[in-house]
Amino acid sequence: MEIAKPYLLFLGDAPDALAAKTAAGVVDWRRDWCVGQTRLPGCGSDVGLADMDVPAAVAAGAKTLVIGVVNAGGVLPDHWVDEIVAALEAGLDVASGLHGRLKDTPRIAEAAERCGRTLHDLRHAAERFATGKGTKRPGRRLLTVGTDCSVGKKYAALALEAEMRARGLDAEFRATGQTGVLIAGRGVAVDAVIADFISGAAEWLTPANDPGHWDVVEGQGSLFHPSFAGVTLGLLHGAQPDAFVVCHEPTRTTMRNVAHPLPTIGQVIEATVAAGRLTNPEIRCVGLSINTAALPDAEARATLDAATAEHGLPASDPIRFGVAPIVDRLLAAFP
Amino acid sequence: MEIAKPYLLFLGDAPDALAAKTAAGVVDWRRDWCVGQTRLPGCGSDVGLADMDVPAAVAAGAKTLVIGVVNAGGVLPDHWVDEIVAALEAGLDVASGLHGRLKDTPRIAEAAERCGRTLHDLRHAAERFATGKGTKRPGRRLLTVGTDCSVGKKYAALALEAEMRARGLDAEFRATGQTGVLIAGRGVAVDAVIADFISGAAEWLTPANDPGHWDVVEGQGSLFHPSFAGVTLGLLHGAQPDAFVVCHEPTRTTMRNVAHPLPTIGQVIEATVAAGRLTNPEIRCVGLSINTAALPDAEARATLDAATAEHGLPASDPIRFGVAPIVDRLLAAFP
Repeated sequence: MEIAKPYLLFLGDAPDALAAKTAAGVVDWRRDWCVGQTRLPGCGSDVGLADMDVPAAVAAGAKTLVIGVVNAGGVLPDHWVDEIVAALEAGLDVASGLHGRLKDTPRIAEAAERCGRTLHDLRHAAERFATGKGTKRPGRRLLTVGTDCSVGKKYAALALEAEMRARGLDAEFRATGQTGVLIAGRGVAVDAVIADFISGAAEWLTPANDPGHWDVVEGQGSLFHPSFAGVTLGLLHGAQPDAFVVCHEPTRTTMRNVAHPLPTIGQVIEATVAAGRLTNPEIRCVGLSINTAALPDAEARATLDAATAEHGLPASDPIRFGVAPIVDRLLAAFP
Repeated sequence: MEIAKPYLLFLGDAPDALAAKTAAGVVDWRRDWCVGQTRLPGCGSDVGLADMDVPAAVAAGAKTLVIGVVNAGGVLPDHWVDEIVAALEAGLDVASGLHGRLKDTPRIAEAAERCGRTLHDLRHAAERFATGKGTKRPGRRLLTVGTDCSVGKKYAALALEAEMRARGLDAEFRATGQTGVLIAGRGVAVDAVIADFISGAAEWLTPANDPGHWDVVEGQGSLFHPSFAGVTLGLLHGAQPDAFVVCHEPTRTTMRNVAHPLPTIGQVIEATVAAGRLTNPEIRCVGLSINTAALPDAEARATLDAATAEHGLPASDPIRFGVAPIVDRLLAAFP
């Protein structure tokens, strides 16, 4: 899917910043694509953009209203519908990462049809994919993988893209989840495709390219997560990465939403190389992205130094210290 | 999905036996559930049942017309529609493993609605699943895995179920593909569920059970197949098998529909144990099911003997020699 830019970010009546984290992610990485935010009475979130209504956003050039907020259950509340219909009638497309589909709300479906606008339901893959073939393609690919879900794989990929571009490399972030798709303006939520086509969707997302081009692919789940490892493996096989970065949150005690302990970074490196070899025999780990937000400065530094010493790989926290050491290693490994 | 029995098997105008292999599989394993076969002019297939039309089948007690034939592209041909509508009007449900949905043919959808009958599109999961949790459940499970797709995983599971039942064990085949679902009368095509829910669907299919009960789970794909390994891994994690049997076709040179070489049996054992440990630390291999159809008798025996010697596991061809040695090992391992 390809989402028309720029965006008007809809925050609804998000009670707090966490509920609007999709919108915040878009602002963090693609502020230039956002003309403003629109909020309903009672909204407790603010992503730092100018408040404006739909007509003002259209006048400022907006092309898509982005539902940048999640609510309990992922269902679209009735009291959001008026604003969404008004946006469609004013000529905007609408994009949503909610579990429920925009087009399943009859007033929204009718307005989109009547106004000739596009509804993007980011959690529901609209594309048809072929099954993956596993054939080696030209172009380079880097994948972020994790010891768990929600350990910063998207953030690490975006930070790597930014650092690589700053050094003049031809690098492009490839989105595999709904927030990532909004940030990239295109992509596919791989966890929402039919199981038979996971690796095929990843191949579609990261096609053959120039030998010097890098796709920086957003990882999903973890090979060690009992809910989602199938998605992780299909993405790994389809993306056939030359390089990968392991993302980790050192203070977590069990994997997200299940009772399993986290694997070690070493286990993730070993399992990723073992499985990834199937479609890229040269796959190798080029760095560790460690979320140290919960640690004081000295402890954060000590954690990174210990990881580097243990694995012989650059370790950094992308938010706190940037990803320059990881890109240094990448360039050394792939001159 | 739960399919009403007994069945009338629809062979359409299948040009040959291969095109009707779904029907043949049902007859092989559940002949008691089949009242007859119905064929269109020009049909070149015969699964050995009495030919009868819909009224005769209804009189004989049939409850479901089963589309037991595939055609090029998996699309339902127009000239099958009359017979399917006639079946619905006579009070039968209809089940199909074609890629195209029965309900996407307006005359069929209308007739089903009007007659209050159920359409089973076996390749399209109708159930909603939760994400997998990976929590250990009581009851025993055996999973068939493969060095490739189409190496006899379903056949091996059915042969194991039959042998285990013949010895008085409480064993139940659990179907994960469309032909398997027809043979079991229920199940889920795991390659057709949304990627996020592969392991959750497998958990749903093989729920907590009596400590002495065995689910014998039909495997899918291969951990080494670049198109489908994600499905295979999610099924492995969700089924959390205590025991697995590796299925292999020794004369195949590349994996099905791709250019990759086959893994060795040893690689499959190692990868299955490494990945399966996540949800069942006690997972172990109890046998090898080797399809020797392409080999003369002496060479078949030599192949099985060599596999046993190399891996220290019973090896058999379920069709040629039965699975008794594998069940012997299973019972020795799980007294």
